[in-house]
Amino acid sequence: MKIQMLPREKVFRDPIHNYIHVQHKVILDLINTKEFQRLRRIKQLGTSSFTFQGAEHSRFTHCMGVYEITRQICDNFQRNYPTKEPGDGLWNDDERIVALCAALLHDLGHGPYSHTFEHIFNTDHEMWTQKIITSKETEINHVLRQVSDDFPEKVASVIDHTYPNPQVVQMISSQIDADRMDYLLRDAYFTGTKYGMFDLTRILRVMRPYDKGIAFDNDGMHAVEDYVLCRFQMYQQIYFHPVSRGMEVVLTKLLQRAKDLYKHNQMNGFEMPSLLVPFFTENVSIDDYLSLDDGILNTYFTLWQSYPDEILKDLAYRFLSRKPFKSAQYNHETKAKLPELAELVENTGFDKNYYTAINTSFDLPYDIYNPRQNKRKTQIEIMQDDGSLIELSTISRLVNALTGKITGDERFYFPKTMIVEHSNDIFSGFYDAFQSHIHNDMIV
Amino acid sequence: MKIQMLPREKVFRDPIHNYIHVQHKVILDLINTKEFQRLRRIKQLGTSSFTFQGAEHSRFTHCMGVYEITRQICDNFQRNYPTKEPGDGLWNDDERIVALCAALLHDLGHGPYSHTFEHIFNTDHEMWTQKIITSKETEINHVLRQVSDDFPEKVASVIDHTYPNPQVVQMISSQIDADRMDYLLRDAYFTGTKYGMFDLTRILRVMRPYDKGIAFDNDGMHAVEDYVLCRFQMYQQIYFHPVSRGMEVVLTKLLQRAKDLYKHNQMNGFEMPSLLVPFFTENVSIDDYLSLDDGILNTYFTLWQSYPDEILKDLAYRFLSRKPFKSAQYNHETKAKLPELAELVENTGFDKNYYTAINTSFDLPYDIYNPRQNKRKTQIEIMQDDGSLIELSTISRLVNALTGKITGDERFYFPKTMIVEHSNDIFSGFYDAFQSHIHNDMIV
Amino acid sequence: MKIQMLPREKVFRDPIHNYIHVQHKVILDLINTKEFQRLRRIKQLGTSSFTFQGAEHSRFTHCMGVYEITRQICDNFQRNYPTKEPGDGLWNDDERIVALCAALLHDLGHGPYSHTFEHIFNTDHEMWTQKIITSKETEINHVLRQVSDDFPEKVASVIDHTYPNPQVVQMISSQIDADRMDYLLRDAYFTGTKYGMFDLTRILRVMRPYDKGIAFDNDGMHAVEDYVLCRFQMYQQIYFHPVSRGMEVVLTKLLQRAKDLYKHNQMNGFEMPSLLVPFFTENVSIDDYLSLDDGILNTYFTLWQSYPDEILKDLAYRFLSRKPFKSAQYNHETKAKLPELAELVENTGFDKNYYTAINTSFDLPYDIYNPRQNKRKTQIEIMQDDGSLIELSTISRLVNALTGKITGDERFYFPKTMIVEHSNDIFSGFYDAFQSHIHNDMIV
Amino acid sequence: MKIQMLPREKVFRDPIHNYIHVQHKVILDLINTKEFQRLRRIKQLGTSSFTFQGAEHSRFTHCMGVYEITRQICDNFQRNYPTKEPGDGLWNDDERIVALCAALLHDLGHGPYSHTFEHIFNTDHEMWTQKIITSKETEINHVLRQVSDDFPEKVASVIDHTYPNPQVVQMISSQIDADRMDYLLRDAYFTGTKYGMFDLTRILRVMRPYDKGIAFDNDGMHAVEDYVLCRFQMYQQIYFHPVSRGMEVVLTKLLQRAKDLYKHNQMNGFEMPSLLVPFFTENVSIDDYLSLDDGILNTYFTLWQSYPDEILKDLAYRFLSRKPFKSAQYNHETKAKLPELAELVENTGFDKNYYTAINTSFDLPYDIYNPRQNKRKTQIEIMQDDGSLIELSTISRLVNALTGKITGDERFYFPKTMIVEHSNDIFSGFYDAFQSHIHNDMIV
Repeated sequence: MKIQMLPREKVFRDPIHNYIHVQHKVILDLINTKEFQRLRRIKQLGTSSFTFQGAEHSRFTHCMGVYEITRQICDNFQRNYPTKEPGDGLWNDDERIVALCAALLHDLGHGPYSHTFEHIFNTDHEMWTQKIITSKETEINHVLRQVSDDFPEKVASVIDHTYPNPQVVQMISSQIDADRMDYLLRDAYFTGTKYGMFDLTRILRVMRPYDKGIAFDNDGMHAVEDYVLCRFQMYQQIYFHPVSRGMEVVLTKLLQRAKDLYKHNQMNGFEMPSLLVPFFTENVSIDDYLSLDDGILNTYFTLWQSYPDEILKDLAYRFLSRKPFKSAQYNHETKAKLPELAELVENTGFDKNYYTAINTSFDLPYDIYNPRQNKRKTQIEIMQDDGSLIELSTISRLVNALTGKITGDERFYFPKTMIVEHSNDIFSGFYDAFQSHIHNDMIV
Repeated sequence: MKIQMLPREKVFRDPIHNYIHVQHKVILDLINTKEFQRLRRIKQLGTSSFTFQGAEHSRFTHCMGVYEITRQICDNFQRNYPTKEPGDGLWNDDERIVALCAALLHDLGHGPYSHTFEHIFNTDHEMWTQKIITSKETEINHVLRQVSDDFPEKVASVIDHTYPNPQVVQMISSQIDADRMDYLLRDAYFTGTKYGMFDLTRILRVMRPYDKGIAFDNDGMHAVEDYVLCRFQMYQQIYFHPVSRGMEVVLTKLLQRAKDLYKHNQMNGFEMPSLLVPFFTENVSIDDYLSLDDGILNTYFTLWQSYPDEILKDLAYRFLSRKPFKSAQYNHETKAKLPELAELVENTGFDKNYYTAINTSFDLPYDIYNPRQNKRKTQIEIMQDDGSLIELSTISRLVNALTGKITGDERFYFPKTMIVEHSNDIFSGFYDAFQSHIHNDMIV
Repeated sequence: MKIQMLPREKVFRDPIHNYIHVQHKVILDLINTKEFQRLRRIKQLGTSSFTFQGAEHSRFTHCMGVYEITRQICDNFQRNYPTKEPGDGLWNDDERIVALCAALLHDLGHGPYSHTFEHIFNTDHEMWTQKIITSKETEINHVLRQVSDDFPEKVASVIDHTYPNPQVVQMISSQIDADRMDYLLRDAYFTGTKYGMFDLTRILRVMRPYDKGIAFDNDGMHAVEDYVLCRFQMYQQIYFHPVSRGMEVVLTKLLQRAKDLYKHNQMNGFEMPSLLVPFFTENVSIDDYLSLDDGILNTYFTLWQSYPDEILKDLAYRFLSRKPFKSAQYNHETKAKLPELAELVENTGFDKNYYTAINTSFDLPYDIYNPRQNKRKTQIEIMQDDGSLIELSTISRLVNALTGKITGDERFYFPKTMIVEHSNDIFSGFYDAFQSHIHNDMIV
Repeated sequence: MKIQMLPREKVFRDPIHNYIHVQHKVILDLINTKEFQRLRRIKQLGTSSFTFQGAEHSRFTHCMGVYEITRQICDNFQRNYPTKEPGDGLWNDDERIVALCAALLHDLGHGPYSHTFEHIFNTDHEMWTQKIITSKETEINHVLRQVSDDFPEKVASVIDHTYPNPQVVQMISSQIDADRMDYLLRDAYFTGTKYGMFDLTRILRVMRPYDKGIAFDNDGMHAVEDYVLCRFQMYQQIYFHPVSRGMEVVLTKLLQRAKDLYKHNQMNGFEMPSLLVPFFTENVSIDDYLSLDDGILNTYFTLWQSYPDEILKDLAYRFLSRKPFKSAQYNHETKAKLPELAELVENTGFDKNYYTAINTSFDLPYDIYNPRQNKRKTQIEIMQDDGSLIELSTISRLVNALTGKITGDERFYFPKTMIVEHSNDIFSGFYDAFQSHIHNDMIV
């Protein structure tokens, strides 16, 4: 491996970490690639900025932040827990560079409006991240290969969780990793809410390497507990917000409609969304994938407002002009009512396939390691004074209350007009029927 | 005038003002227009986010903030200085709604990458703001007209500084107005710097209406002084940053090249930038103007990377992948050297028309009222205990040091390769000659 | 009632609330009394500043903060929920002044190092608060009587929870009141921790009066939940901190020793702690009580360092020079070991009565209303869209995990020397025996 | 020198620096001495907390902060500018420990209410700091001597500016040193104002050692300029505040009265202020000096409220109950009026020697090095890319406006009653005469 240091450390000003410190040439070169710069054009929180107006930050700044937290973890490990002999479970600083690169690049494969887009076009950002790193066509790959020929694969394997050193893997991906820590702080800052403001400095202080990964000093238990609660609160308050999801539903339906029109050749004769076509046909090259960003989708939405198709036109207008669908919660009992409600929407003149939707949000705030589970979680381990480990939920009543319990919110979405007061409208009967099923924001 | 209140105040979460409070139906309706929502797709600081990565906030959030500050000023004025009889120079709360609307809409006509774009395409955002407000085609105009038929013109006249009540005009536009106060705080927050963090609460407390406009209580003098200094610092540190301007230069040259190619019919046969064509031909309708945003320009830049024109292609790549031009300061003495330097750039294979530029940034941090001046400034007046007024710079040594003095930075821009170390290059002679003219970041 | 407004609002700068706004003459006059100014000389957090060095703030600033939060609650209630007819359960702004006075004065009777002092000298700050308010000797009483003759009693009855309007009582004292809200934010700010930083603005927005007191809008549920968790975290992390309690134990033993010496006439011949004598003899007038503050106790501790009594001298030195006792946790099983451990301490030369102690900290983070309970809690009620109420813990999994569960920490305290490494010491055997009982900070 | 590291770094939570990191045993031992712990009982800002209620922080926390900033400077210097050979003007990390100790101890000799007390009792905190460090009686000296026999003198010489390495001296004392940087940030935080919030991280990044001391990188010029302005603003807004000085005047007169009474044996028969007597007689041992703190003075003030002397009693009441003298500005022209005004105060029944005063506050915000000056300033040097130095004021218009110019505020103080409205008072004539001399807060 050929690791070149910069002659002088370079810093990037950042509102979350104050400065992001770059000391290795490879990191600076990665930042300067076109694939990484593309992340400036993709919002971190997709449709959330329609609800929390400040949340307009990009994936670029988040990736820089994950890098910086990882760098600080490495610094702490190297200062306080440097390995003395192989197998002692302490930190080997030769692992630093692969950790830093993986941290920086972990979200490289995100597309515009990530989850919504993936859902409609069958893409997968994790797969794309690895592809961009390992494909010889990319600038990223070119930069990584200057470290060593197998370095791109190494970096990709960290993101894939197959890298042999669990400390490196857990830094980037575990229940308390650099990724989550950065996005909680960053999203809290930009939304202007306080729910994500846990004590990063303290957590960094109490992290320590051991042979199976990363544990936390006993006297940091409360800071770790607080982090778990913050994350839970952010999901409840920000990420699951019904209005952001109301915009997500509009977006989903809009993309679906475009795809459907394309498939049925109903776009012919109009300005083609050339950069989207590969996605319509599900035949996407790396170049195609890397060409997309939020602005390009919005550009097509702008153009679609002049298309003759009424549904495409209307949904594009709703998205660009922020007209979210409204919603009501349902549960397993009231779920049976949804077809009836969709029918009422259809009765007032909307195509129910494009104007009603269910949208569910689920999160598992914390879980213990379970070998029988599909996606096994690396549980959070608290290290006692004598070196023994205790799993977090056994000593935190609050974390215990969240452990293994999926928290979710299931909602039915529909056009706002369904619940607005109308007088003497020909559809009044349908509106009234519809409204009679909703009480205290729930379907009854 | 028909002013309708909302049944219940609506709030928008904002990281600068915590909450933005909307109490009037007209304000909520204006926010929900497509023209106002478009501002979400235009960055407040243009190319500054290439230097200060957090500065990705939009003009939308800024406009909301200007509205909120104006609302707070009106609240203070109404609570502490309500008019008792006509002509007493105190606050008439009937003026509130026009002030709020003007505050919200003052930046409505901004296009993408504002100043750069205006410069190349001869547009003017202030003129467009008024046009969008007063043209009967727009949703904005439609909403305003529901207050009264002449309400759009009233609002436009505030932005035009011709509205009769100077208190309302100065709230929105003066040397210490809601616009400047919001952007300083907002830009400081999102860049993560501290230079713009003056004491808004205190300034709001000491503002007071008088017959000629707005003055400031004596005991707020230092807060006002601090605001003037903050503004000065933000210009020096953020708005004039040479790297952001290096990206601005790339953008200018890129748009210029596109325009030149179009004019010479060299775009024929490729995917046309249909939304830009009206600007190339300088024949722009309101609809054309309102279709544009940052993402649309970026979309064309993405497409242009596949154009055969090498200059267009290269500049598009530089812009999207953040490859700013480098620069050096010059002054009136060394300005004469610039042609020689441009020639050296041309000698290394760059078209000097697209690869060199001068870029100057000037600001007048504060000025006193001067009837002979072209753009007359409303000076900042400090009110003594006995009601008499003193102009700020006469009592502040610091403000006095800035008064009437234009601060600027004049730079010559060129490709980075000119100042990188090259060994055994065929152009070495030209590089060396070029570099010999630059010392301590200045042309010598 | 005679309520006089100030000609112009007066503000006090405060780091938590930015400004504290005083609009009533009676409030300003109360602040200016000698009894209220005394609170500047009593630290809010007693011995906690020995652990969190920034926590040197006084009860004065806290009381001002409780006043300000109450004022904001009243403003919100008056703006959004003004009563229209008696018995409608909405807010009657005539209640404002009694609420504000009670908020400001609720901690008036605190003595120095509150709980420790009360414990040794059998005083009770709530009783003293009411006494100072209702006794005709005080400046406070004099100011209050200018509103009306029975006004002091009214204010006292709010503090006593016997005031008829439950809205007023719950503002000052309930599970989510102005008192708790201010101290959480304030203590978080001054300690420099983040655990107490809940979203005050949001909670104030969602508070609403109803006939049985104060409820919270449905969409504020998560903000209220977050507040309950913050409070829990502050107790765990700040208020129960073992080192602060180690200083509290030193203080307790020091005061105990002084009292014992005085009782046995062993202070005769030395400079008498004249201001403490009434407390030694438990014959305390209002004047005696109001003479005391933190500095006066510290003054006597300084003087006692020259006393001949070795225990008094040593404990005074330990307190002034921050030499906390160390501790280990015990539980109901290991409690039986404590006498043996105390004996080991005595064996190394310490009087176990003054050099060992148990110190327990308990908190009930949240509870539902329970008519059979001794101290009945007013549970937190969330109001649904249709006006019906739901108790918080039934909809918050996290709050439910804390409900009705006392959280505590029981510790045994002893001199640090017992757990320091000693070599070849004559007491080595005792130290070793002692240390063998402690493992992972627990007695085993 | 024997420098022992702690087995594990110890941290202190601090709201300004988040954590203060202690790595050397000598630093921890110094913190734990009784002389250093005494600083907890002395407020950093004396009477300022009577104006800015949050400013109750002690000199202890400030000293910890100065230590931490110095530690960070050393870390930066060692990482980026380690010496390679003697005389290269770079940083020799052997200097670290003396720098850290001097930083921690630089304010050790401060007494209660520093400047006021010094003025009345002819003490000098800098002299006492050196005495406490070098006297063999103190715990401080004992700890320092464990490094080496001459270490106390070395540390004292840094504080005395006679230490040979100018880098170490300038870290602790220069126009931009760790002392000033900590107090600006700390005082801004605790007062809750924003004027002192400069960008510490950036300044630390651009500091660099050179052979004559410490310089600043060119690209940090604006951050340094901002620091100078912040400091100026803090003086104008916080440190010179007329109300804090009104309390300072009360305190001065109170101590003066006590001293006068003692000298004239008029304290006989009452409880003696035993800890103050050495100061009355100006015969003060180190022990006497170190016994004093704010609380002890306040204790005597409490006791003096029961003395028969009316002036002592009244001034003690005014101080403890926050009844500041009021004031008006005078200038060299109106100074001649002061005797007449003092006479008017005397006419209304006040002893003018104890109830009137002049109080002047002066600051020299920045100055260049001037070999002819009495207190020569080490000017701030900005280092160009080529290593040459430029003095700050030559490139900053704002700093230039402040350079060499003393800023001050001269005020005449008197009892509030002189300017309150009185009706039908026997002294009305005197009040009216007095008030006629004051206009817009100035004597005319």
